[in-house]
Amino acid sequence: MAYDLLKGKRGIIFGALDSNSIAWKTAERVHEEGGKFVLTNAPIAMRMGQIKELAEKTGSEIIPADATSEEDLGNLVSESVKILGGKLDFVLHSIGMSVNVRKGRAYTDQNYDFSHKGWDISALSFHRVMQTLFKADAMNEWGSIVALTYMAAQRTFPDYNDMADNKAYLESVARSFGYFFGKEKKVRVNTISQSPTPTTAGQGVKGFDGFISYADKMSPLGNATALECADYTVTLFSDLTKKVTMQNLFHDGGFSNTGVSKEVMDHFVE
Amino acid sequence: MAYDLLKGKRGIIFGALDSNSIAWKTAERVHEEGGKFVLTNAPIAMRMGQIKELAEKTGSEIIPADATSEEDLGNLVSESVKILGGKLDFVLHSIGMSVNVRKGRAYTDQNYDFSHKGWDISALSFHRVMQTLFKADAMNEWGSIVALTYMAAQRTFPDYNDMADNKAYLESVARSFGYFFGKEKKVRVNTISQSPTPTTAGQGVKGFDGFISYADKMSPLGNATALECADYTVTLFSDLTKKVTMQNLFHDGGFSNTGVSKEVMDHFVE
Amino acid sequence: MAYDLLKGKRGIIFGALDSNSIAWKTAERVHEEGGKFVLTNAPIAMRMGQIKELAEKTGSEIIPADATSEEDLGNLVSESVKILGGKLDFVLHSIGMSVNVRKGRAYTDQNYDFSHKGWDISALSFHRVMQTLFKADAMNEWGSIVALTYMAAQRTFPDYNDMADNKAYLESVARSFGYFFGKEKKVRVNTISQSPTPTTAGQGVKGFDGFISYADKMSPLGNATALECADYTVTLFSDLTKKVTMQNLFHDGGFSNTGVSKEVMDHFVE
Amino acid sequence: MAYDLLKGKRGIIFGALDSNSIAWKTAERVHEEGGKFVLTNAPIAMRMGQIKELAEKTGSEIIPADATSEEDLGNLVSESVKILGGKLDFVLHSIGMSVNVRKGRAYTDQNYDFSHKGWDISALSFHRVMQTLFKADAMNEWGSIVALTYMAAQRTFPDYNDMADNKAYLESVARSFGYFFGKEKKVRVNTISQSPTPTTAGQGVKGFDGFISYADKMSPLGNATALECADYTVTLFSDLTKKVTMQNLFHDGGFSNTGVSKEVMDHFVE
Repeated sequence: MAYDLLKGKRGIIFGALDSNSIAWKTAERVHEEGGKFVLTNAPIAMRMGQIKELAEKTGSEIIPADATSEEDLGNLVSESVKILGGKLDFVLHSIGMSVNVRKGRAYTDQNYDFSHKGWDISALSFHRVMQTLFKADAMNEWGSIVALTYMAAQRTFPDYNDMADNKAYLESVARSFGYFFGKEKKVRVNTISQSPTPTTAGQGVKGFDGFISYADKMSPLGNATALECADYTVTLFSDLTKKVTMQNLFHDGGFSNTGVSKEVMDHFVE
Repeated sequence: MAYDLLKGKRGIIFGALDSNSIAWKTAERVHEEGGKFVLTNAPIAMRMGQIKELAEKTGSEIIPADATSEEDLGNLVSESVKILGGKLDFVLHSIGMSVNVRKGRAYTDQNYDFSHKGWDISALSFHRVMQTLFKADAMNEWGSIVALTYMAAQRTFPDYNDMADNKAYLESVARSFGYFFGKEKKVRVNTISQSPTPTTAGQGVKGFDGFISYADKMSPLGNATALECADYTVTLFSDLTKKVTMQNLFHDGGFSNTGVSKEVMDHFVE
Repeated sequence: MAYDLLKGKRGIIFGALDSNSIAWKTAERVHEEGGKFVLTNAPIAMRMGQIKELAEKTGSEIIPADATSEEDLGNLVSESVKILGGKLDFVLHSIGMSVNVRKGRAYTDQNYDFSHKGWDISALSFHRVMQTLFKADAMNEWGSIVALTYMAAQRTFPDYNDMADNKAYLESVARSFGYFFGKEKKVRVNTISQSPTPTTAGQGVKGFDGFISYADKMSPLGNATALECADYTVTLFSDLTKKVTMQNLFHDGGFSNTGVSKEVMDHFVE
Repeated sequence: MAYDLLKGKRGIIFGALDSNSIAWKTAERVHEEGGKFVLTNAPIAMRMGQIKELAEKTGSEIIPADATSEEDLGNLVSESVKILGGKLDFVLHSIGMSVNVRKGRAYTDQNYDFSHKGWDISALSFHRVMQTLFKADAMNEWGSIVALTYMAAQRTFPDYNDMADNKAYLESVARSFGYFFGKEKKVRVNTISQSPTPTTAGQGVKGFDGFISYADKMSPLGNATALECADYTVTLFSDLTKKVTMQNLFHDGGFSNTGVSKEVMDHFVE
């Protein structure tokens, strides 16, 4: 079902890897709601075949950009404005990768070169994207910027490793930059803290299937899916949420405020 | 602008006093979005002339109900289901009143009969409403219940008096009942923590105008208006936010996560 | 081990029921640290034989007081000041009881007379105690008031029932009254959010043993004991924490900031 | 006044620059409470004349160490254990520096090389210190690690710049590493979120004096001083707080939970 919530709006969507990814679903939903956008991803992460399919389906262009490169981001933003025919109304940041996780380093045995690289890609990239948009004055008033995050930023999930700290930094950037983007450009900035989602990226995390099942049992409404996250993101891009800013919004079926569920307790009681 | 976001949905709206009130604006916006509803208010607070105007404009019926009376609430719910032709999809709770504030009692000099009465009306009423809906099995799956609250539940605003504590209780009820309503009926429950709003009710609070101006200067996007709150509520009633539950959602132009703004600091620097 | 941390300090300790209770352990530890105090409890809850033993051991007097009676509290405070020979430096509020829990009412099937009574005893009593102290000007500057609470105020534990909402109210009272007590009397007010503790009171809650075991497995340092809570309370009564106020302090071995532990996850992974 | 709270305990104190610094006051107070320690600082930041004075006064040795160098930290830890005659019981991390602030770069105009360096020194250093201690198995059971932080990690203070995001990362590291240090070594890890304090380091922040005055007016008990912070740290190093871990503890006279104070509102009301 579509409502024309984003009719006439323009934006950039980072991180659509394949049809499991939240950014992919968001691109589809934004398209259904009447929004136009440029798709982007790191050249190295891009599976050209798949993303082309999405681009065709949604009538979008693809501009590869390394989110750790100011030059790439500058080009992405100026090209997007040109292609879409005006300033931007929405941006989705869905980028994250821990080298320590990929290389199998425990949280208590980090390689700090890996930590630097993971933080640069997963957290500082969000600042880079916003600084590029801000300096280029590329956002329309009442535009909306959203980044995806996870509750490990607030509470420890042992296998989430240094991504927890990266997400805490990312959420702080949303608040800090949200202040300036709000005051000076009337643009809002928020993060969505999503249920664990069986994306291709998430599958790198150890014990992920068991964890998804646990989270589902803890959440009174069950885990939120990638499609539901896309729906929620649409509301945050729409004109109906203009005064929501600098927030971290849990989209998790109630997990975040559940101390324990009956289903989980059943495992601990005879 | 309307999007048909609530087409075919049925609900109850508590607390539309006059055209300044958030519930009034919400009723208008829900109507524009295609929702049908019953309006209700305490018999004692009802200004029949005004609310009739809203009822006519939105094609709604009015059922007076004292939110501290289980009998009134039971009648309200069963009548609403009859009138609207089916189970409910949304409920707005916008009820609050502190007898201590009205009678000019300082927070350090409370009359505890007043405290009981204010808590019963402002906080426990939310539980009563939900228990009535729950027992009558009157909510459709994926329905949405929203109550309005204020950030005094987290941080002290000296003139907000015992309403701070009542709102803390109300927000806790949203989490507690949200757990059971989620697990057993797939219904979500949230609170919106709104900017100070120049409603008729808000005007009872001492120094309210100065406070509204202060909040506006602190908020990077300025205070959220009653109409903007109505818009936000519409998104929470829609099918696009199905997995958001047990949350307290700040709708305040960024006030809640601003430590201090430049505009406020300017008052403290020579 | 004792450090004379409370030498010369005077206070009131509410809620020492038997040797399992946190208030009992706190009384013993405060005594060891050189503090003098009056013991009090509701006449109805008092097991005279046991509390007399504690009174003798710690050289304390006992003044029964119903914490829902302003008259009783007024008498308690004025008598305590007389007996102890001066204004007070510390107060422990350890009072809580849910009639709904005792009577076996589900959270979705509350009796609202029970709700009123439980809230009055468990939550509003903390305001009453502080208002009595405040009006009598019975606290010394840099005095410290502590109430015990539980994390159900933030997240839902289904069996904790309406005590969750009562504790949310109590924690709000700590902030609200802490503001005024700080500004006007330089007195600090905090709550300690303690691990589930096998006290006689706690045992009323359904499935409590299983829950204690679950909490222990979730907490990196294990559950905090009643004696450890007494130790922590001593630091909050001491002169070393003068600027800590209006806080809710988790004393729980890390439970509150653990999303999941390996030990708990092991139950969900084959 | 001293209580022998840290008698027989050994530790390391990072960041004692001069007599205004919190780490300096902490060293003095730990010494008074019977603790022994090694003082350390970055070779580049060290004012040898001054820190020698502190070392003599407290009977401590000085080991310079760059907190971004694993080699330096490894040497510091092994030497400290040797000098102090056993494993460690406490560590204070008081390290922070933003190159962007120093170079006058606005938050919306960051130099990302500066961002990397500031984050490495201010945030990742805390992980480095703990990983070094963890791998060397240099902490005794029930030891305590504390880092200093600031509330900008939760709410935006526009002049605090990228230190806000660095502190958010630091606080996340406390939780993440606190989990593993708790489970595997029974060591607790916390951060103290201190009032703005007129240290030499703090003075680099623009408009700092006006901000200190504002914070003082907002805080019901006034700002916490460096000495009071040292006192509070002593309680966290003592055996009386064994089950407090993974927490961010506000030590700020109530600022964090005050929405607005009467004194501040007076600036906004005629």
